[in-house]
Amino acid sequence: MTELRTLKVALLGCGNVGAQVARILIEDADALAARTGARLQLSGIAVRNVNAPRDVELPQDLFTTDAETLVKDADLVIELMGGIEPARTLILSALRNGACVVTGNKALLAQDGPTLYEEADKAHVQLSYEAAVAGAIPILRPIRDSLSGDRITRVLGIVNGTTNYILDQMDSTGAQFADALAEAQRLGYAEADPTADVEGHDAAAKAAILASLSFHTRFALENVHCEGITSVSAADIAAAKDAGFVIKLLAIAEKLSDADGGEGVSVRVHPTLLPREHPLAAVRGAFNAVFIEAENAGELMFYGQGAGGTPTASAVLGDLVSAARRLVLGGPGRTETTTGHVPALPIDAAVTSYYIGLDVADQPGVLARIAQLFAEHGVSIEIMRQTIHRDAESNVESAELRIVTHRASEAALAATVEAVKGLDVINSVTSVLRVEGV
Amino acid sequence: MTELRTLKVALLGCGNVGAQVARILIEDADALAARTGARLQLSGIAVRNVNAPRDVELPQDLFTTDAETLVKDADLVIELMGGIEPARTLILSALRNGACVVTGNKALLAQDGPTLYEEADKAHVQLSYEAAVAGAIPILRPIRDSLSGDRITRVLGIVNGTTNYILDQMDSTGAQFADALAEAQRLGYAEADPTADVEGHDAAAKAAILASLSFHTRFALENVHCEGITSVSAADIAAAKDAGFVIKLLAIAEKLSDADGGEGVSVRVHPTLLPREHPLAAVRGAFNAVFIEAENAGELMFYGQGAGGTPTASAVLGDLVSAARRLVLGGPGRTETTTGHVPALPIDAAVTSYYIGLDVADQPGVLARIAQLFAEHGVSIEIMRQTIHRDAESNVESAELRIVTHRASEAALAATVEAVKGLDVINSVTSVLRVEGV
Repeated sequence: MTELRTLKVALLGCGNVGAQVARILIEDADALAARTGARLQLSGIAVRNVNAPRDVELPQDLFTTDAETLVKDADLVIELMGGIEPARTLILSALRNGACVVTGNKALLAQDGPTLYEEADKAHVQLSYEAAVAGAIPILRPIRDSLSGDRITRVLGIVNGTTNYILDQMDSTGAQFADALAEAQRLGYAEADPTADVEGHDAAAKAAILASLSFHTRFALENVHCEGITSVSAADIAAAKDAGFVIKLLAIAEKLSDADGGEGVSVRVHPTLLPREHPLAAVRGAFNAVFIEAENAGELMFYGQGAGGTPTASAVLGDLVSAARRLVLGGPGRTETTTGHVPALPIDAAVTSYYIGLDVADQPGVLARIAQLFAEHGVSIEIMRQTIHRDAESNVESAELRIVTHRASEAALAATVEAVKGLDVINSVTSVLRVEGV
Repeated sequence: MTELRTLKVALLGCGNVGAQVARILIEDADALAARTGARLQLSGIAVRNVNAPRDVELPQDLFTTDAETLVKDADLVIELMGGIEPARTLILSALRNGACVVTGNKALLAQDGPTLYEEADKAHVQLSYEAAVAGAIPILRPIRDSLSGDRITRVLGIVNGTTNYILDQMDSTGAQFADALAEAQRLGYAEADPTADVEGHDAAAKAAILASLSFHTRFALENVHCEGITSVSAADIAAAKDAGFVIKLLAIAEKLSDADGGEGVSVRVHPTLLPREHPLAAVRGAFNAVFIEAENAGELMFYGQGAGGTPTASAVLGDLVSAARRLVLGGPGRTETTTGHVPALPIDAAVTSYYIGLDVADQPGVLARIAQLFAEHGVSIEIMRQTIHRDAESNVESAELRIVTHRASEAALAATVEAVKGLDVINSVTSVLRVEGV
C-alpha cells in the first residue's frame, strides 16, 4: 500500500462542538484515513485561553492563541468559534490561501454568506457548513445535491431545539412560557440569556440558509420575517390542542407564484399551528426536523438531533471528509449555484392559513356578520366554531369563536382583523396565529 | 454568457419512472442547464416496443430499440429497464465508454454490484443509484457523504411501500393478510404477482445496498436473511397492538461486536415489532423511512415517498445533475469505499429482542418454570404478561402468556423456544416475532 498523504487540519474554537471534533479526529484517525485516502492531522486548536477547562482531554501542545499562523499552514480549516469577527477574517484568509473551510457559523453565513461563497469560488476550494443548520441532520447536502434535479416548493423546519423543548413542555404539561423556559435553563437546553433562541433569531439565520439553498438565490437575514415564542401563552397552546393542533416555532421558506399575489420567496420564522397528525407535530423535546415539499419528490422529512457537541461534530466531520476526499482526488470545489434570482417577499405578501380566536357577544346574527366581513376582505373561512360559556354566578353568557381560514395573504388577514375589531359585537381578538399543514 | 456545452443523455427503459424522467428532462431543460452548467440533451429512449402506450406523451422520434448504439454515443446513461440482462451488459458497456451511469436497478446492484463498482472505478466515472433504495428519499448520499466522518451502528428501514401498506391496513382495519393484499392490488400498490414484495425479496436487495454503504463493505443478496409478511396473521397484529406495538417489515443492518458473540454485520429482513412511539411506527401507508443510529450523530430518520414514477424520477434527476456537474467541472468520479471489511453474520448470530406468545395450562408454578427455562438458556425476560380466558360454556380456563425478552442471539432464542415446546404445561407456541426499538 502506498504511503498516505497528510492533510493538516486547523481547528478554530474548542467549545462544545470543537472539543468533540478534536476528540474524533484523534480517536478515529485510522478510520478517517481509510475513508479519505489521506491522514487528517490535527495541526492545532486556536483558542482565546489555552488553559481554559475543556469538555474533553486533549494534548495541551495542540492549543495556541495564534489563529492566523495556524490557518496559514493548513489544508483544511474548521471554524467553530461562532460570532462574526475574528471568524470572518480567518475564514477569508483560509480560503485565499487555498484551504477548504468547514464552518458551523450560521450567524456569519446568514449575515455575510455571499462574501464567503465568492471567495471560495475564486479560490476553487470548498466551503461547507452542514453543521450550521439542524445539527447532526444531513439536510444541506440533500437539498443541494439530491434534490438538484427537482424544484423545492416549500421548506418547513423545526430548527431550534430550545424553543421546541419549551413549546413541547407547554403542550404536555400546560406550563406557562416563563416556567417552561426556567425548566429548559435548569436542564441546559436554554442559555442564561435565551434571547437568540426564544426571539427566533437563531431560527431566522437557519431559515436564510435553507431558503438560499432551496431556491438557488441568496437570501440574507434581513429578508427573514422573525417572530419568537415569548408571547405564546398556555391559553394559546390549550386552545390549539383543543382544536387538534400543536404549536411549533417553524422556519418557513416558500415559493409563491403570481396566483398567490406575486412571484417570490417568503422566508419567515413564527409560532405556527400544525395538525397533530402532521409528521412535524411528532418532533418532541430538543429534536429538530426539516420537512420539504418538492414538485417531483413530494413530501420528505429529515429528523435528528439539532444540537449538542457530539451530534454536531458528526456533521462537521462529514463535511471535512468530503472536502479532504476532493483534495485527494483533485478536481474543483463545489460552487454555490445562484440560478434562481427570485425576489424575497415582505411578510405582507406571505400566504398562509390562520387561526383566529375571538371573544364575541352572544347575540343572534353575530356569526353571519363576522363571516360576511371575512368574505368582503377576500379571506375564506374553513372552520368556524362557537363555544358558549355561562358564568354560574352572574348568569352572564359569553361566546368564544374560533376560526381557521383558508390560505390568504398576511395583508388581507391583517385588514380583516382590523375590521373585525371595529364590530360592536366583538369584545376582543384573543389570538391570531398562522397555520401550516392543513 | 458563454455557450453551454451539451451532454447527451441516453435513457434505457420508459416505464413508470423512465417516462417521468424523460418528461422532466424536456420540460425543465432550462432549469437543469442553469444548475448543471451544461445542456442535458435527451438523445434517445431505448425500449422493447417503440409503439407501446406511455404514461407521458413524448416525441416519437426519441424512441429506439437499439440500446447498444444509443449507449455508445452518450455522456450520461440512465438505466431504468430493471432486471439483470440486458441492463448489466449495457451499464458495463456505458462505463467502459467513459459515460456516467445512473440506475435504479436494486436487483442488479444487490446481485452484481461489485462488478459494476469496479468498472466505474477503472473508468474514473460515476455510478449513482439513489433511486434504488427508498424512491424519492435522499438516503444513499447522506450515508455515503454526510455520515462519512461518523460510524453507523444500525440501520432500520421501511423500504417497501407495498408491504407497509398491507401491514398498515391490517393494523388499522383488523383485516387478514389476504384481504389487505387484495385491496393493495385493487389500488395499484401491489402487483398481480406480489411475490417480490410480500416475500421480502425487494426489501432484501435494498438491505444489501444499505448495509454495503453503511459499513463500507460489500454485502450481496446471499448475505441477507429474508422473511416476508405472508405468515403475519390478524391475530399477530392484534396481539402486538394490545401490547403497544406495531408490526413493520424492516430491512435491518446492524454492527455487532464481540460482546454480542462475534464481530460482524447482521443484515436481515423480517416482520418486526416496534413500540408505537418509535418514529418508524408513524410511517403509514405506502411511505418509506430509514432510521439510522450513528455513534456521534445519534438517531436520524429520513422519510418520504418510496415509489411512484414522479418521486423516483426526482432521485434519478438528482444523481444525473450531480454526475453532469462533475463532467462539466472535471475531476474524477466518486469511488465506492470498501474500507470496512467486516464479515456478514449468519442469522443465528443476529442479536435482537423477541416477542413470544404462548398458550399455556393455567396451573400454579407455570410462569416460574418458563422463566427458569429462559434463564437457563441465557435469554433474559423484560416483560411477562399472563391473561386468563374462561370459556363461558365449558367453564374450561386457558391462559395466554406474552413475553418480551431483552436482546439475545437468534441461536439462544431458537434453543429456548425448542425447550419451551417440550414443557408439558405448554399447549402451543402461538407466535415468535422479533422486536426493535425497545
